[in-house]
Amino acid sequence: MKTIDSIATYSIATYLIRRLSEYGVEHIFGVPGDFVLGFNQMLEESPLVEFINTCDEQGAGFAADAYARLRGLGVVCVTYSVGGLKIANTTAQAFAEKSPVVVISGAPGLHERIKNPLIHHKVRNFDTQYKVFQELTVASTILDNPDTAFAEIDRVLAAAYRYKRPVYIELPRDVLHLPGNPQYQPTATPQDSDPETLTEALQEATTLINAARQPVILVDVEIHRFGLEETVLQFVEKTNIAIAETILGKSVISEFHPNYIGLYEGAMGSEFARDYVESSDCLIMLGVMLTDLNLGVYTAQIDPKRCIAATSEKLSIRLHHYEEVHLQDFIQGLLHTDIQRRELTIPPRIQPPNSFTPIPQKPMTVARLFECLNLFLSSDLVILADIGDALFGGAEMVVHQKALFLSPAYYASLGFAVPGAIGAQMAVPHVRPLVLVGDGAFQMTGMEVSTIARYNLNPIIVILNNGGYATERPMLDGKFNDVLPWRYSRIPELLGVGLGFEIYTEDQLEAALADCRSHSESLCILDVHLDPKDISPALKRLTQALGEKVSS
Amino acid sequence: MKTIDSIATYSIATYLIRRLSEYGVEHIFGVPGDFVLGFNQMLEESPLVEFINTCDEQGAGFAADAYARLRGLGVVCVTYSVGGLKIANTTAQAFAEKSPVVVISGAPGLHERIKNPLIHHKVRNFDTQYKVFQELTVASTILDNPDTAFAEIDRVLAAAYRYKRPVYIELPRDVLHLPGNPQYQPTATPQDSDPETLTEALQEATTLINAARQPVILVDVEIHRFGLEETVLQFVEKTNIAIAETILGKSVISEFHPNYIGLYEGAMGSEFARDYVESSDCLIMLGVMLTDLNLGVYTAQIDPKRCIAATSEKLSIRLHHYEEVHLQDFIQGLLHTDIQRRELTIPPRIQPPNSFTPIPQKPMTVARLFECLNLFLSSDLVILADIGDALFGGAEMVVHQKALFLSPAYYASLGFAVPGAIGAQMAVPHVRPLVLVGDGAFQMTGMEVSTIARYNLNPIIVILNNGGYATERPMLDGKFNDVLPWRYSRIPELLGVGLGFEIYTEDQLEAALADCRSHSESLCILDVHLDPKDISPALKRLTQALGEKVSS
Repeated sequence: MKTIDSIATYSIATYLIRRLSEYGVEHIFGVPGDFVLGFNQMLEESPLVEFINTCDEQGAGFAADAYARLRGLGVVCVTYSVGGLKIANTTAQAFAEKSPVVVISGAPGLHERIKNPLIHHKVRNFDTQYKVFQELTVASTILDNPDTAFAEIDRVLAAAYRYKRPVYIELPRDVLHLPGNPQYQPTATPQDSDPETLTEALQEATTLINAARQPVILVDVEIHRFGLEETVLQFVEKTNIAIAETILGKSVISEFHPNYIGLYEGAMGSEFARDYVESSDCLIMLGVMLTDLNLGVYTAQIDPKRCIAATSEKLSIRLHHYEEVHLQDFIQGLLHTDIQRRELTIPPRIQPPNSFTPIPQKPMTVARLFECLNLFLSSDLVILADIGDALFGGAEMVVHQKALFLSPAYYASLGFAVPGAIGAQMAVPHVRPLVLVGDGAFQMTGMEVSTIARYNLNPIIVILNNGGYATERPMLDGKFNDVLPWRYSRIPELLGVGLGFEIYTEDQLEAALADCRSHSESLCILDVHLDPKDISPALKRLTQALGEKVSS
Repeated sequence: MKTIDSIATYSIATYLIRRLSEYGVEHIFGVPGDFVLGFNQMLEESPLVEFINTCDEQGAGFAADAYARLRGLGVVCVTYSVGGLKIANTTAQAFAEKSPVVVISGAPGLHERIKNPLIHHKVRNFDTQYKVFQELTVASTILDNPDTAFAEIDRVLAAAYRYKRPVYIELPRDVLHLPGNPQYQPTATPQDSDPETLTEALQEATTLINAARQPVILVDVEIHRFGLEETVLQFVEKTNIAIAETILGKSVISEFHPNYIGLYEGAMGSEFARDYVESSDCLIMLGVMLTDLNLGVYTAQIDPKRCIAATSEKLSIRLHHYEEVHLQDFIQGLLHTDIQRRELTIPPRIQPPNSFTPIPQKPMTVARLFECLNLFLSSDLVILADIGDALFGGAEMVVHQKALFLSPAYYASLGFAVPGAIGAQMAVPHVRPLVLVGDGAFQMTGMEVSTIARYNLNPIIVILNNGGYATERPMLDGKFNDVLPWRYSRIPELLGVGLGFEIYTEDQLEAALADCRSHSESLCILDVHLDPKDISPALKRLTQALGEKVSS
């Protein structure tokens, strides 16, 4: 990162904008409000960033999360309480799934807080929102002191960048134009690994891997967050070791890579990957979060005594731990050890069919939907999978490129995919989002198609319309799992832009997808009617395991 | 409240449902999720309550708030984190505006928490959500101990009822069916005022009022919350003292009552009411919150030395305070003192016009919209006014009946009115909601028209379509204040039910309202096109005052 040229020319707000820009931020998502209006105007006038208005703050929070996952930092900017507290959930998701989102909230001016009056939007005390976000972020600050404001901005942004988790910056509206400390010197705080510990850890890992009969690499979400996909690929190609992904780590490596053995998710993922991973005598877990969904609701059989497990939080080899060894240094280091290249003998895996022949008037099924979509995939698409069969069916699709499968597969908040598509396409303009979303999730945040229309984005939105929360029906069913059927294909008429398709049969689906491909100027919405009881095999396995806990 | 008949027959969950029912709750709003699914099923099977599914948890939170305002207690029931954290904002609104909302959140079972695993929906620790809600409620509990669970339920519900503020109950999913303490005896905890202090306070108040040249009563939100509208009316009719309302207290008394002098809001409300209140030598403030919006952004001139101010939190007479005097006891007590009845000489106030003659093809204006709606009002309508001109224009409408004007006029969160209509009509089935909502607010929560359709409700939804956040334009304008124009009148086509109207002119409005009146079987949506710069005089005054603070 460059250093600030002439610190004395910056105000607190202009310094903040400049720093965000230096972290690669070009878009800031949010909804205005009187306590943040002055800052909104500064954003609008800044050549460094563009402010993207969403319909509701929740949409902005999810968009910023998707942007952060693809860009390395995302920003959501809202007003006090009525804006900020609406994104408690999206910030929690960013925390749980390690997405570096910066929450910027306007707030009453310091001068307005004297004598603690009842100013609109105040909850209990002026610091109520700050206290809430302390629970949901790794660093937080109220910029209430010009002498320390620049340093606080740097401290908090550095924490987001280092820990890949959300942070909170509160901006009282009367400090925007104040100068900071003109003597302030931004200091880089390199956080290197301890060299001797790193060397010892690498030696031990090398010895173990070389001695192993069947080592295997398992990669997860942190490889995305720390931008280590290319390094992992080099490690695979240097050593010729087989590699599997978790569901949250999907798309770390091209699924066409010859060393890729499939999705590992205990009893719920690929059978072959499961056998290979669980019979391995040296499992190299890189950036893996041991969540219940990654572990197939604890059906995974992973013996720590046979593991090398490196995350941003710690490095464990067998049953002991190394401190001060960073994930990126460890993986980089593996490239330079004398791990021997080995022969890889894995059987050819099942390839996706190379054609989809629709049966005319045959009602759509979940299985056939994903077969057809799998063939539709191309390297210019980014998949955003909402929770439910959008994710579990989607997880079986074969992704062509790295980092282009986004889903909150651990925190599992419904409604991420539509607003997430906004963030994804702003982050990587040359891709087109393919949104997979259930009808229940669509009804939560689907009005953000308005934001999609406003900014001329062109996602293809596939709604799995099965009349309710299909994930829950196999666990425990009732009227509470129903949602009202909307005529989703009419939404373009509401917006005045886009194409809508109503799909009951296989031939309708194939025709619609062909139209979508040629219609790239605006959004497309596919209302895919499915039987309420038709769920993917993966979801069936998952809901059986989860259902046992519902009424225990 | 009745006591529980045979405590040993209740489980923790059935006791909770029974107690809620005894507080008058018949509807519970929410969205299911696996951690709350077992409880959802119990609600569905219970004859005492009905579970109302909304599209998003935010809608459930606002619906429960409206229900609480009209029924005395409202309940929102959600799943862990991905549900609960979505209603941080609606709970904050209930806190700020004293609305007794019970938040019930499902949660991981106690047995699942051992060894602190990464279970889906977990944020930082298992108590993250609990800590967040401690900031937003007056009482909170995790029902993790069967021995104390019944007592905890009673303690927390009593706090909501007493303080008229939200509370939080977390229900680990493995405790639902556990029995509580079979020896538990619910104890009523009467919270009477101290009799001698009450007597002294009433005597002093009586002396001051009798000695006053021009006493006046000002009523606010707590009169609604404590159900004291009838008592206030008796006090007015006994003493013949004039009465004004704040904007948050609107509809405490019929605005046709001869003693009613108007809306008091500093420089922003009625001129006559302002002069009368500010020149009074004895201002009797009953349940008044001194918020910035109630005080017309501090343009109000209220001298505490001339005030009797009773709230649920304290009683002040001139510059001294009485403790342990409850609001309801004080107002009840005033009925039985020898306050003299006096002659009231106030000039006749401006009455609403008794006809609206539309000028054909004349474009709609905000002023004419409210003139027309004012005549449309009838006693079977409840007004739900969202923030912006929906509220400030709406505040000038003449309400016929008590308690039938709902708006978050202090916390001022956009998006309350549409989901609020669901709660209002469930709470008082014989009324029909008249929803006044700006286009910006509608785009936040408007998809809850789906819930309206699902439960066969029939609100009339008037969308003030002026292309953006009209409240903010006069403060500071930019692209960030724009919203995408939707064709709102097409929404009934999306839902398959309801009537939509597109309104540009006065004659179109009058015709549409006539159609709405005769079409009572489902919802009606009026898309009223307004000039983006056309705002009500009240809003103009408000935004001038607020605008000065934006870029201070």
